[in-house]
Amino acid sequence: MKKSTWILVAVMLAACELAAQQTPPAGDPPAWQWSWEKIQSAVGKVRAGKDLTPKPWPGGNRVAVGLSFDVDNETGSLRDNNLSPSELSQGEYGSRAAMKRILDLLDRFKIKATFFVPAVTAKLYPNDMKEIIARGHEIGLHGWIHERNSQLTELQERQLMTKSMQILTEISGRKPVGIRTPSWDYSPSTLKIIRELGLLYDSSLMADDRPYEVLFEGKRTGVVELPVEWIADDYPYFGMSRFSTIRPHIGPKDVLDIWTKEFDVAYQEGTAFILTMHPHISGHRSRIVVLDQLIQYMQSRQGVWFARHDEIAGAAKTRMDQ
Amino acid sequence: MKKSTWILVAVMLAACELAAQQTPPAGDPPAWQWSWEKIQSAVGKVRAGKDLTPKPWPGGNRVAVGLSFDVDNETGSLRDNNLSPSELSQGEYGSRAAMKRILDLLDRFKIKATFFVPAVTAKLYPNDMKEIIARGHEIGLHGWIHERNSQLTELQERQLMTKSMQILTEISGRKPVGIRTPSWDYSPSTLKIIRELGLLYDSSLMADDRPYEVLFEGKRTGVVELPVEWIADDYPYFGMSRFSTIRPHIGPKDVLDIWTKEFDVAYQEGTAFILTMHPHISGHRSRIVVLDQLIQYMQSRQGVWFARHDEIAGAAKTRMDQ
Amino acid sequence: MKKSTWILVAVMLAACELAAQQTPPAGDPPAWQWSWEKIQSAVGKVRAGKDLTPKPWPGGNRVAVGLSFDVDNETGSLRDNNLSPSELSQGEYGSRAAMKRILDLLDRFKIKATFFVPAVTAKLYPNDMKEIIARGHEIGLHGWIHERNSQLTELQERQLMTKSMQILTEISGRKPVGIRTPSWDYSPSTLKIIRELGLLYDSSLMADDRPYEVLFEGKRTGVVELPVEWIADDYPYFGMSRFSTIRPHIGPKDVLDIWTKEFDVAYQEGTAFILTMHPHISGHRSRIVVLDQLIQYMQSRQGVWFARHDEIAGAAKTRMDQ
Amino acid sequence: MKKSTWILVAVMLAACELAAQQTPPAGDPPAWQWSWEKIQSAVGKVRAGKDLTPKPWPGGNRVAVGLSFDVDNETGSLRDNNLSPSELSQGEYGSRAAMKRILDLLDRFKIKATFFVPAVTAKLYPNDMKEIIARGHEIGLHGWIHERNSQLTELQERQLMTKSMQILTEISGRKPVGIRTPSWDYSPSTLKIIRELGLLYDSSLMADDRPYEVLFEGKRTGVVELPVEWIADDYPYFGMSRFSTIRPHIGPKDVLDIWTKEFDVAYQEGTAFILTMHPHISGHRSRIVVLDQLIQYMQSRQGVWFARHDEIAGAAKTRMDQ
Repeated sequence: MKKSTWILVAVMLAACELAAQQTPPAGDPPAWQWSWEKIQSAVGKVRAGKDLTPKPWPGGNRVAVGLSFDVDNETGSLRDNNLSPSELSQGEYGSRAAMKRILDLLDRFKIKATFFVPAVTAKLYPNDMKEIIARGHEIGLHGWIHERNSQLTELQERQLMTKSMQILTEISGRKPVGIRTPSWDYSPSTLKIIRELGLLYDSSLMADDRPYEVLFEGKRTGVVELPVEWIADDYPYFGMSRFSTIRPHIGPKDVLDIWTKEFDVAYQEGTAFILTMHPHISGHRSRIVVLDQLIQYMQSRQGVWFARHDEIAGAAKTRMDQ
Repeated sequence: MKKSTWILVAVMLAACELAAQQTPPAGDPPAWQWSWEKIQSAVGKVRAGKDLTPKPWPGGNRVAVGLSFDVDNETGSLRDNNLSPSELSQGEYGSRAAMKRILDLLDRFKIKATFFVPAVTAKLYPNDMKEIIARGHEIGLHGWIHERNSQLTELQERQLMTKSMQILTEISGRKPVGIRTPSWDYSPSTLKIIRELGLLYDSSLMADDRPYEVLFEGKRTGVVELPVEWIADDYPYFGMSRFSTIRPHIGPKDVLDIWTKEFDVAYQEGTAFILTMHPHISGHRSRIVVLDQLIQYMQSRQGVWFARHDEIAGAAKTRMDQ
Repeated sequence: MKKSTWILVAVMLAACELAAQQTPPAGDPPAWQWSWEKIQSAVGKVRAGKDLTPKPWPGGNRVAVGLSFDVDNETGSLRDNNLSPSELSQGEYGSRAAMKRILDLLDRFKIKATFFVPAVTAKLYPNDMKEIIARGHEIGLHGWIHERNSQLTELQERQLMTKSMQILTEISGRKPVGIRTPSWDYSPSTLKIIRELGLLYDSSLMADDRPYEVLFEGKRTGVVELPVEWIADDYPYFGMSRFSTIRPHIGPKDVLDIWTKEFDVAYQEGTAFILTMHPHISGHRSRIVVLDQLIQYMQSRQGVWFARHDEIAGAAKTRMDQ
Repeated sequence: MKKSTWILVAVMLAACELAAQQTPPAGDPPAWQWSWEKIQSAVGKVRAGKDLTPKPWPGGNRVAVGLSFDVDNETGSLRDNNLSPSELSQGEYGSRAAMKRILDLLDRFKIKATFFVPAVTAKLYPNDMKEIIARGHEIGLHGWIHERNSQLTELQERQLMTKSMQILTEISGRKPVGIRTPSWDYSPSTLKIIRELGLLYDSSLMADDRPYEVLFEGKRTGVVELPVEWIADDYPYFGMSRFSTIRPHIGPKDVLDIWTKEFDVAYQEGTAFILTMHPHISGHRSRIVVLDQLIQYMQSRQGVWFARHDEIAGAAKTRMDQ
């Protein structure tokens, strides 16, 4: 038997243990045996409440466009303990090559955007943070090191989120008012901590295309959700992982076609288009061109409000108690 | 946790599904050692019988088009015990954002369609069911919680299917006459229970593009099959699963091209075009546009009969004893 | 721990044993420690010999086009012990819906092609075999039940290949002169048995685009190779497997573009274009259109010789001792 | 053997690779618990230093284009102990069919390129090496048998790299001055050995689109980096592995679109475009056409300097101490 096979057996058994720790208690029945109450309770934990789309948006506009960039850089590799210089250099690209390209593009089109930043990124690249703020953009929370919230205890999650809040506030000189959870991952405690921190909005859930109030166990929370979707994210199309099968599946011109269609219907329905990108992904040369063309197209339409997520959430919030 | 461990966990869960799907008795010899009788028996269990395509279809039409929507919403996540609010919100989208868009589109084109609904979906969203019926569409069976039939005993499968039948009848006020099995999965008992329930048709098998009578061990069953295919399903192109490699591989304009070609040959051959979609997949903005354009194209041709699956199966049934 | 996790652990350990049986003896060093002799011996087992491209091809033509169809139908599912009626119905489609479409297309363009048929397919569908022969096409070997040769002993492989030879001869009335190994899989014994059976040609290797003589341990074998490639195969683009991540990655119009380019360079270089398809894959409506358009394009050029594989191999063989 | 078992075997082999790639000490805490010093040290090991882009490039040109070919041939299969004749024949194609096509194309466009060659390839195909040199191209290091550096001890890595240096020098008559590590894999010792060997440049990291000086633990190394990217590599788009899910995801005309966009922005920004290809991948008929069209497009612009990697690195090096 090959040595690698033996190593694998050990690895698999260890992984099984880990998997078992994360799976339900022994004896948990399969879902088709669950009681109706259990199903209702599972589904009802976090739900979409009132549609908060203003008609019209500020300035009499018919659609809001929120461009956001998750500034992960090296944090995804660090979280996975992947310390290969070649892997880490792909994250470094996000600051060294991509950030200026993105900031200049936004300036050229006179658009203010939102940057969700893991605190580790902010500490590694404080000048990028200053530049983002100086040009009028927003910085929002995105975890400490792109950790997965659902693997943490409530205490650990609160400590990391609080520490990240402090660091972003210190480095950027502004207190963040919004969050995008890393990997859009939600623990049972995430929403609770968001409320404790008094945040205006979250941008991690997918129950609608329209902004909505988040409900917790059927009750109002006052938190505005600016919903996201994999469709409007650069990673599923452009992600690349050498030793898995994640790789670029769709070319940039097809991504432009998809995002254009997403915008078109948002425009037609008079709602919002929230687009999630990453500097180390969309900041590459063949992709920045896509963003450039997309913005040109959107700016050619009348009644399009390009705004930061805090501005969009603020406008939506006014509808909460109407 | 290390990335490798995460990937292993995902890989193991996928392997679990695979293992659960295929569990021949221990010591079963490899297929190349099987007797001819064993091969014949395996292949001959469920087969395609008589071609039931009417020439012409009702109204003198040359082709039948059956649009169907599997209203899975949260049931796929529930079945997999994936209770993350972010995951579940993707299913909630199917009701909250997608359903109205789809129903309005069908109304605009004056098309009646078929919705295959897991009973859990019907209980979670009874108003959607009432709306589907009120607009003249059909509701068909699609399991209890999108369970996999081949993992159940015959008794369990019968209980779930019977319970689902009762719930859909109560909520929609109509007794379903057709079924699409969840994941198009067939146990050795599935066809037997379909006959016990007296259903007119099934829409889960793939032996032809034309409607046909299903044979069981070489004998006629009286059940009409409206065959499906992955090619004419939105999931293989648009599916997205964060921790597996399922993701959007093909852009909407290429899907439009594929489905147009499928229709064109159905039209030319004078048969049927059965299209499987999901509200939480095809109800998204960049995809509803594809369906819109596809319908416009199909309606531009003469002799196209848009009908519910029960109507198509009814027309096919008249050929059964001719 | 979930029940499924326990099942997985057992499954994985069993799989490890199987894997170990197929991997090199314990203690086999990693490749970077191998001696130069070991590397040379591994690489030199089966190699490409003399280029056998005739200049010109028969009839003064500049390029040979060999269309082939591997008639797998249900054999892939049977080999994998996947006896789900839904899975098997996808293979049944190959005979019931696809075969007539393909044969009619070939007749319409007056093209003779080659069908590589597992003997189990021939026994399940003897009428398809008679029709193939009646229309002037060739039938070649493709294993018994699409088994993997590299998992068999030499004796087992010889018995299955000999039995398949007899069955194809009986059913089709012609003795096959060529083989395409299932999955293009080669055991250390495959080439030896091919020579024992006195076959004219093999079509399973990929060392060139041009026909060549196969060398065994550096010595001539007299066997003509008509080389294949995944690029010129429908499966990598259109394959679909529910519980793996194999699915349609590329749309038919892009496949048409790829195959057109492959033909164009074959035409320009004056060699051969061997195209591998499967009735249950390319016989579908949105794909038969691609083949139709490809043939139209190729027939629009001067000097293209459409021929069966036995004819192409025969023409190549005349170059062997020149 | 069951399909599930086959898939598990494939999955396990992939997991073996993953496990081997990432082996932190047992008990290593998750990344979110690391000290800031540990994070800084991990990130700071190998970094990008000074931007070395000359303004202008030699000859007054505004952009440098470096075409490179990693001549892996059979080495990837050998490294993985995959000795199937069918697999190995795919590597043989790289020499037998692809190399002449590529060399002739380069001659036709009067372009000098760089070939990174595993020493095993050089020994198996010494005539290809002589031909590469005779036509004015460069040969660079690419490991012994495409081994993974991060799986070796420092001693093993040094021995293999030194041996490869000697063999390439003997066979080609030139001492290599640059390296591309196999799989762009970097051990903690790789950069150290590169400096010991006195190489001018490396081409394996991804922190920028512009040439830069590599820093080791914050200190200058004098090594020029010509950065690479998966976006500008043929493998992620065209790779094919029968028993994994690596397969062609994107058609050649979309790859042409991506690479054209990459070049366009490089041209606009006045930097460099480094393109990584493989003879056994891009040398195929439907792909060589892409390279042909890409070169035609690039040659239609003014101020484009096509050069070998050693020339580009040499020009960049002149900026190092300015």
